[in-house]
Amino acid sequence: MQIAKVRGTVVSTHKSRSLTGVKFLLVQYINAEGELMPKYEVAGDTVGAGVNEWVLVSRGGAARVESGQGEKPLDAMVVGIIDTINVDNRLLYSKKDEYRPN
Amino acid sequence: MQIAKVRGTVVSTHKSRSLTGVKFLLVQYINAEGELMPKYEVAGDTVGAGVNEWVLVSRGGAARVESGQGEKPLDAMVVGIIDTINVDNRLLYSKKDEYRPN
Amino acid sequence: MQIAKVRGTVVSTHKSRSLTGVKFLLVQYINAEGELMPKYEVAGDTVGAGVNEWVLVSRGGAARVESGQGEKPLDAMVVGIIDTINVDNRLLYSKKDEYRPN
Amino acid sequence: MQIAKVRGTVVSTHKSRSLTGVKFLLVQYINAEGELMPKYEVAGDTVGAGVNEWVLVSRGGAARVESGQGEKPLDAMVVGIIDTINVDNRLLYSKKDEYRPN
Amino acid sequence: MQIAKVRGTVVSTHKSRSLTGVKFLLVQYINAEGELMPKYEVAGDTVGAGVNEWVLVSRGGAARVESGQGEKPLDAMVVGIIDTINVDNRLLYSKKDEYRPN
Repeated sequence: MQIAKVRGTVVSTHKSRSLTGVKFLLVQYINAEGELMPKYEVAGDTVGAGVNEWVLVSRGGAARVESGQGEKPLDAMVVGIIDTINVDNRLLYSKKDEYRPN
Repeated sequence: MQIAKVRGTVVSTHKSRSLTGVKFLLVQYINAEGELMPKYEVAGDTVGAGVNEWVLVSRGGAARVESGQGEKPLDAMVVGIIDTINVDNRLLYSKKDEYRPN
Repeated sequence: MQIAKVRGTVVSTHKSRSLTGVKFLLVQYINAEGELMPKYEVAGDTVGAGVNEWVLVSRGGAARVESGQGEKPLDAMVVGIIDTINVDNRLLYSKKDEYRPN
Repeated sequence: MQIAKVRGTVVSTHKSRSLTGVKFLLVQYINAEGELMPKYEVAGDTVGAGVNEWVLVSRGGAARVESGQGEKPLDAMVVGIIDTINVDNRLLYSKKDEYRPN
Repeated sequence: MQIAKVRGTVVSTHKSRSLTGVKFLLVQYINAEGELMPKYEVAGDTVGAGVNEWVLVSRGGAARVESGQGEKPLDAMVVGIIDTINVDNRLLYSKKDEYRPN
């Protein structure tokens, strides 16, 4: 998986019928130093991630293995909201510190 | 998925039999700032996208999961026509503003 | 799919048994301006493409979905010979003009 | 597979239910000269790799082929802890020499 | 597939049980001019390729389609030893000329 930050949403009303009800998040990849990279993904979301949250994104067939997803033409999915990232025994990211929704 | 702009079409009469009747769109990728990138894809289309429309493109097995697509050797598919893209609570793209087919 | 030009062939006598009889084409990718790029692929061929023809190449599982291909360890396949490419309502490539086999 | 070094861990409590109990390792890729590269992966782990160990990482569907993994939306998996790497009959890496957990 | 040169081996005793007995080759990619590139792959091998031989490497699900490979978490496989490569009707590589094992 890659680490990404939720930046926004994409709306498409005219789409494959099987995608009805799927929410599309625009997520931007983050490198191993915790910085935003140019690359992005438009991913489905089953965990209810919000703008500015850091998430785990799975690509390829992984986006379709969960129950009920098998016939949706998705190639990227937000599979988790990140609480903490530790690199070399140092805290690189903590949701508690950096993200305050209220 | 990636965001792309429909740029044109590719015609192939001598092809895998299972691809008979598939329309091939040449779509060019768009980055998170809304600019055209050099990378492109030749994708199948089941949503009827037209030239200059912005679309969502799924790659890999996602191009073959929908009913009737399973035996077509496609690795990219236009799965939706984009209405709006919002990044950081700002409207990056709106089909109503930027695309007027008539 | 990507657009590529057939540049040559690769011969391998000592290979996976299931690949017996498969012809390997060396195809080089072409960008959206119609220029050769450094990237190439060695692809199986079921459409009988010849050197210098422009073709559509599918990668990944798409190379194995057609009847009889399921157990061959191929990750790229020539799936069509290109007749014409149109970009922005302009003819970028026409087989009739650019390719004369005799 | 790619060679990577275990750099740390990612914790996500709010995630796809099927990922409950999966440990996420942050691994950074290593090139053919044995140097760290910027690219990383967040991978599942079934072999119990520890920080600083060099591992083999499989991506794509390979992350889901083992028994019990089929419905987990993983696209990367640590599949082995590396003991030695030999290139051109020269020892590029040996776990015994470079990694001492105690 | 990509063309690669066998450079060495990777040994891992602590690995996924299904990988027992699999030989891991470190292969380095070769470009369309016949030159070594920085990118490499650690690939399984079922054809018995040796150091310095040029081989065809398949990636993704192709590494698992052959009989008995389905549950092994491999994402790359050496599927053939290359005898000759012809580009533009010129011999780019011949095993007979360039590789003498004895």
